[in-house]
Amino acid sequence: MSDALVTETALHGGRHLVIRHDSTSTNTRMELSVFIPPQAQDQAKSGEALPCLFYLSGLTCTWENAATKAGAQAYAAEHGMVLVFPDTSPRGPAVADDDEFSLGQGAGYYMAATESPWADHYQMEDYVIAELPALVAEHAPIDLNRLGVTGHSMGGHGALGLAMKNPDLFKSVSAFAPISALTATPWGQRALEAYRGGKDGGLYDVCQLMASHGWSRDILVDQGDADPFKDEHLMPEKLAEAAQANGIDLTLRLQPGYDHSYWFVSSFMADHIAWHAERLQ
Amino acid sequence: MSDALVTETALHGGRHLVIRHDSTSTNTRMELSVFIPPQAQDQAKSGEALPCLFYLSGLTCTWENAATKAGAQAYAAEHGMVLVFPDTSPRGPAVADDDEFSLGQGAGYYMAATESPWADHYQMEDYVIAELPALVAEHAPIDLNRLGVTGHSMGGHGALGLAMKNPDLFKSVSAFAPISALTATPWGQRALEAYRGGKDGGLYDVCQLMASHGWSRDILVDQGDADPFKDEHLMPEKLAEAAQANGIDLTLRLQPGYDHSYWFVSSFMADHIAWHAERLQ
Repeated sequence: MSDALVTETALHGGRHLVIRHDSTSTNTRMELSVFIPPQAQDQAKSGEALPCLFYLSGLTCTWENAATKAGAQAYAAEHGMVLVFPDTSPRGPAVADDDEFSLGQGAGYYMAATESPWADHYQMEDYVIAELPALVAEHAPIDLNRLGVTGHSMGGHGALGLAMKNPDLFKSVSAFAPISALTATPWGQRALEAYRGGKDGGLYDVCQLMASHGWSRDILVDQGDADPFKDEHLMPEKLAEAAQANGIDLTLRLQPGYDHSYWFVSSFMADHIAWHAERLQ
Repeated sequence: MSDALVTETALHGGRHLVIRHDSTSTNTRMELSVFIPPQAQDQAKSGEALPCLFYLSGLTCTWENAATKAGAQAYAAEHGMVLVFPDTSPRGPAVADDDEFSLGQGAGYYMAATESPWADHYQMEDYVIAELPALVAEHAPIDLNRLGVTGHSMGGHGALGLAMKNPDLFKSVSAFAPISALTATPWGQRALEAYRGGKDGGLYDVCQLMASHGWSRDILVDQGDADPFKDEHLMPEKLAEAAQANGIDLTLRLQPGYDHSYWFVSSFMADHIAWHAERLQ
């Protein structure tokens, strides 16, 4: 059992946990929330573990933004799915940071940093892939063979990239307004320069990963067509091109009138939860 | 047409409006949000106006807490209901305030203040009853004969009290963890002292209004049994007693394990929206 401190609140017939733990990946105290649906009570009798969806948040967010604003737990309670909301970076006074919101604390890009001063703590890729599944399994009855991943913006980039690199870990993937081509955006270029010395864009650019790794299952992506970051930072047309060029089954839905906020994310959360539930049965 | 400034965002197939306007009740600039469900597009053809539910928030809140955290718009979109989220008090540097969160800005108690320095702006009762319905009707296709009201904590007190005093305006009422007996709680006693000179508790105490005004329809109230404010400030047992003594059809549900937060409110929002929708058909 880990050193975790857990607080618990009733939510939608299930339980909302906030877990604080010392991460061996980031070498910091990390905080996340986990929703355990009411079906966990049946699970305690039947022994059948539940599917689990990781939600990776965007720039500036902690676990709290999506957990409080996306409405996801109501749908997860219907489908009997555990939800995990990790933080977006290591945090604290000893952790390197930047004045700009698109780098440093709140902006881990789900990458493994190799450069000083970032490498000491910015290990969000290992944190999500190698540390969190086992940690969550200590607190919730999840089936480690039925994990899915989704995310918003920087977290959509994280979800798509981590799934393609770890298809044995994540069996389903979707995204909301993802950063599709990290090497082509000012935000992504700056993050790659800082965290990886400007190298290894191919390990993190979703479009490049579609060519190098591919994805044998299907992908659902929603993108608001009134999203102010769409053209400069998200580039859904590049995602569509890369999917087509590499024979990947992408459903990309341009949603008329929707912006980049949680008003958008919450509007399509029901579809994404149902979509993952179907694929993780 | 009012002087309102409106911003609009797509949400759940409908529209989320933020309206800023100069209130004639409070003599301040006020802000609220309104959700217009997708059925308003049909309404534009059929001419049939939609039912509308007012949600009154609790201490410290603005419109934003419930609008972002309660998940209500998803359910309102299913039922074709307009939602209105007003602020909880007048605000601004010229508005009287108090160091304690339970009085002053963020704590209007949906009362009409008679005492200095509060009376100049603390006119939340008139604001909700006399000003908001017409203002909302300028921006959304609402049927003024099909208005309901609900609220949380201080806002549950507001919803129950305003409905009983205005049964021709509000045709349905429910509440989440309401302050049930304003004259019996430290928060309420202090507010009555400040805003009304310690007089007129009978005009604002929900239990007393059940005796003096009554309610000829039914009432739904949810209350978490792990709510830390339950015994000192909310007093659901007094509400149950007053309803029984006055022949009022109250369904009071004690929800095991739930606290006072929006985790609680969001968990039962679907039930309340459906309940109002049925009564406002």
